[in-house]
Amino acid sequence: MGEKIKRTHHCGSLTLENTGDDVVLAGWVQTRRDLGGLIFVDLRDRSGMVQVVFSPEYNRQAFEKASEIRSEFVLAVKGRVFKRPEENVNPKIPTGEIEVFADELEILNTAKTPPFPIEDDIKVDESLRLKYRYLDLRRPSMLHNMTFRHKVNKAIRDFLDENGFIEIETPMLTRSTPEGARDFLVPSRLNPGTFYALPQSPQLFKQILMVAGIERYYQITRCFRDEDLRADRQPEFTQLDIEMSFVDVDDVISLNERLIKYVVERTTGRTVEIPFRRITYGEAMEIYGSDKPDTRFGLEMVDVTDIALKTEFKVFSEAARSGGKVKGINIKNSAGLFSRRQIDELVEKAKEFGAKGLAWISLSSEGIKSPIAKFFAREVMEELLERMGAQPGDFLVFVADSDPRLVVTSMGQLRLHLGRHLNLIDKNALNFLWVVEFPLLEWDEEEQRYVAMHHPFTSPMDEDLDLLEEDPGRVRAKAYDLVLNGTELGGGSIRIHRTELQERMFKVLGFTQERAWNNFGFLLRAFEYGTPPHGGIAYGLDRMIMLLLGLNSIRDCIAFPKTQNAACLMTEAPAQVEPRQLKELHIQVTI
Amino acid sequence: MGEKIKRTHHCGSLTLENTGDDVVLAGWVQTRRDLGGLIFVDLRDRSGMVQVVFSPEYNRQAFEKASEIRSEFVLAVKGRVFKRPEENVNPKIPTGEIEVFADELEILNTAKTPPFPIEDDIKVDESLRLKYRYLDLRRPSMLHNMTFRHKVNKAIRDFLDENGFIEIETPMLTRSTPEGARDFLVPSRLNPGTFYALPQSPQLFKQILMVAGIERYYQITRCFRDEDLRADRQPEFTQLDIEMSFVDVDDVISLNERLIKYVVERTTGRTVEIPFRRITYGEAMEIYGSDKPDTRFGLEMVDVTDIALKTEFKVFSEAARSGGKVKGINIKNSAGLFSRRQIDELVEKAKEFGAKGLAWISLSSEGIKSPIAKFFAREVMEELLERMGAQPGDFLVFVADSDPRLVVTSMGQLRLHLGRHLNLIDKNALNFLWVVEFPLLEWDEEEQRYVAMHHPFTSPMDEDLDLLEEDPGRVRAKAYDLVLNGTELGGGSIRIHRTELQERMFKVLGFTQERAWNNFGFLLRAFEYGTPPHGGIAYGLDRMIMLLLGLNSIRDCIAFPKTQNAACLMTEAPAQVEPRQLKELHIQVTI
Repeated sequence: MGEKIKRTHHCGSLTLENTGDDVVLAGWVQTRRDLGGLIFVDLRDRSGMVQVVFSPEYNRQAFEKASEIRSEFVLAVKGRVFKRPEENVNPKIPTGEIEVFADELEILNTAKTPPFPIEDDIKVDESLRLKYRYLDLRRPSMLHNMTFRHKVNKAIRDFLDENGFIEIETPMLTRSTPEGARDFLVPSRLNPGTFYALPQSPQLFKQILMVAGIERYYQITRCFRDEDLRADRQPEFTQLDIEMSFVDVDDVISLNERLIKYVVERTTGRTVEIPFRRITYGEAMEIYGSDKPDTRFGLEMVDVTDIALKTEFKVFSEAARSGGKVKGINIKNSAGLFSRRQIDELVEKAKEFGAKGLAWISLSSEGIKSPIAKFFAREVMEELLERMGAQPGDFLVFVADSDPRLVVTSMGQLRLHLGRHLNLIDKNALNFLWVVEFPLLEWDEEEQRYVAMHHPFTSPMDEDLDLLEEDPGRVRAKAYDLVLNGTELGGGSIRIHRTELQERMFKVLGFTQERAWNNFGFLLRAFEYGTPPHGGIAYGLDRMIMLLLGLNSIRDCIAFPKTQNAACLMTEAPAQVEPRQLKELHIQVTI
Repeated sequence: MGEKIKRTHHCGSLTLENTGDDVVLAGWVQTRRDLGGLIFVDLRDRSGMVQVVFSPEYNRQAFEKASEIRSEFVLAVKGRVFKRPEENVNPKIPTGEIEVFADELEILNTAKTPPFPIEDDIKVDESLRLKYRYLDLRRPSMLHNMTFRHKVNKAIRDFLDENGFIEIETPMLTRSTPEGARDFLVPSRLNPGTFYALPQSPQLFKQILMVAGIERYYQITRCFRDEDLRADRQPEFTQLDIEMSFVDVDDVISLNERLIKYVVERTTGRTVEIPFRRITYGEAMEIYGSDKPDTRFGLEMVDVTDIALKTEFKVFSEAARSGGKVKGINIKNSAGLFSRRQIDELVEKAKEFGAKGLAWISLSSEGIKSPIAKFFAREVMEELLERMGAQPGDFLVFVADSDPRLVVTSMGQLRLHLGRHLNLIDKNALNFLWVVEFPLLEWDEEEQRYVAMHHPFTSPMDEDLDLLEEDPGRVRAKAYDLVLNGTELGGGSIRIHRTELQERMFKVLGFTQERAWNNFGFLLRAFEYGTPPHGGIAYGLDRMIMLLLGLNSIRDCIAFPKTQNAACLMTEAPAQVEPRQLKELHIQVTI
């Protein structure tokens, strides 16, 4: 049942240089057109498309058989490459200067009419695309996404291999750990009443591998989190996981800069400058109101709390006096853009983002327009404008609140809104940015204790070690996130490698010795046997590929993604199983 | 807490050429010896080992600190490389001509005394090794295994990338399919009462990818089978999965020969000749009594059924007359090896393997010695000896039975026994062999129906298509296994790509249309939309690496393997989970 004529060339590879060649092509029928007594078929394979001509003069038998051809039929065609007449050249496709006259046609398979056309820019419900994923993947853009993803994986592996990293596979059937997100569980048949957990990440195993002396480990691996799915989350996702021994923050960062440069340059042909800019978490929050700032545009936040103290404007002065903050953004040369109505809309936006209000100052060549101007002495207003770098034509906005965190987060969101709304974002930019010196801990209101911001094995910064017990909230971590265009690509840290520090950390987290050992016993035991200093990073690979491809949905770079309900529309997983299967696993369903 | 002095060199990389260099090393203490007022430390990292000398004359501070050093402590050492005095040269290690005199010592971490020494050829219970896997992995042989595995993976990926294969990740949370082994199940929280299954292989997805037009797919991926574990099985294992479109058996075989040659030559430095020998399943069974023959030694089986008809020896003649078989093996030049007692033992072995008995003929220069000789006319005996290629000094053994299958399988096992017992196996040989033309179907006594030998999507051979309904047991498949030294490395087939043939196949398997669609509906639907001819192969990668490394256990090439009870002794998975977790998953334990 295989083809009798064997493929010699790929459709998309034929050029004028092949003129006169006898070729055998194999692929799918994109279109068939009957025109002037000829049958034209656009034949498509992975490499692209080429026009095949069936002519009764050239080969009557092939021509007659060609009348059976429909869209998406699978063909093998033997023929000869001809230069197209000048008037028929199609500059839109790479093979547009030639066509293949068919000698022989073998219909390898028929096809039903697809539920949607196999081409890009189609308007079709995503659920239909997911159900017929095999047809969706035939579309050139999806094929490109899959191929690109392969190239990214390959580039990552090549770079890490050249740099002495060993790929090691860690288990998928592992142990449920109570910290972190919700686990997917797998009942054990051989050990009744017990369960494996699918890994949320290989974090513990990669640290174990450092204890084992592997020194440089990586893995591209599937991870699982049973969360309620947000728009761009998948229950299973792919992580690039890296860990190194005998390193500090700078070593990990510099290795990863070279990695990212290598991968992006090799897969996109674009140039990436390293080192990337680094800012601290504190700066990121103060300037951008976000721990993953989009630095493709300005609109930086300026602190004017000290000036606010000097005004009669109560919203400002009281915020400043009560330990709060007042911050402004100078939207350069945009005073003309903000009509009364648009200002009102902007104020509403700011409130949506959590601000109690939004003060504004519009500067034209005629002077200041602002409802708050009357509360400012002239020299205070001058100081304010100078601090804001304001010039005629600028439009300034301010948020004040007694809760300083609310000021930065609401303004951070307003900043993003403005960036998009005012079209300030360069879509072609790739702005990589390290955010460093994250807080080690954050206060959990619900649990009334500190929890680890990254995870409980993250090392505090040496400078802050003394604060660990006396002021835990101020301790900074040897942690770093890599941000691309305002999205977190990955994050990691230098880990704690000494038992005594790990024990102090657990104490601060409110863990008893017993609870720590119950939860992480095997790691703590391992740490006793000569653990090197180590650290690493993990990237969300799906998201990295999505960003590099400029996609809007993570599902478009995953071959068989799941819906928001964690279902696969093609295979209809998850599904009911046979009672026998559950019985063997010693479980029953309780609904 | 990071090291203050930064590693400049790796321990195992230092040679005479580094003499006089100032270096910083980091690693683990293999041994510490105090000798003649000096302290000698063998420092080990991933690259190897080097001797570090602490001398009170060279640097008193470092020397004094060195007294704290114990085995497996983690050190950073700054020092200078010196040529060793002639009498101290250690030719056993690559760095044996030099030593490093220490200026500065930083103890990066302490270590408890390991429960077993960190060296090869230790006698230690495997369960202890698995519990302290991080220490076990520090042993040079285990580190080598992990590194080798990485290299194999890398070589596979390089070759397949160069040959146009795209790595595509298929889902881990998928649907339970009723054919095949037992599935691991994962309860769905968001879809109460339903379950995902972990994939036994990406078989259906890779065929879907061919429908999707990917043409050349590969993946190195985890697969799961919830079987009662035999010695060398793991509940999760790694598969190299390959699928190609527009190919026939020869294309797949030749691509894979180039792949194997590339991988083995690149990772072992050995030479692999291609093409590999190919034999049919029928020949393999007739000559070796196995579908995965070990061809590193001879002892081929010879059919003498026709001659057996002519003797008075009832065991032979009746076996031959009743549709059975008589087969012999000529153990060359070994008559002297078989004493009466050893012959008795051999007969017992044959019975263990299922034979009813074992006839034998011993040839010496003085003539024939055999309990069955008297039943043979002289010319019949001569014909027998000639058929067997017998010469003085040879020892011949025969099995006869009315069940021909029992003859070949018992003799096949006897052959392996003899090969090992008589030391006929070249341990250094890499005998690759394709076994082709497997039967498509085999009769299942329990279910009283034919079942697919490979899987229900395997294509029959074109020549046998007409037999599919009239004599299903005789239909051969376009299936192939790659065998290395008597172990199956991988197997695959050309798949059925036309709906009508697939439907015939299901009919022969006794599936109603409804059952076929219930079980494989999404694949059958996909097949309707233009499926190209396609086929592929899957390799058990753990086993391949085990064989290439010459290991006895698959667990020695897996970083974190499970025991026969499917447990991880290091993490103590599987384990009980919190009632809250089960409640969220809508299940309860029934024991």
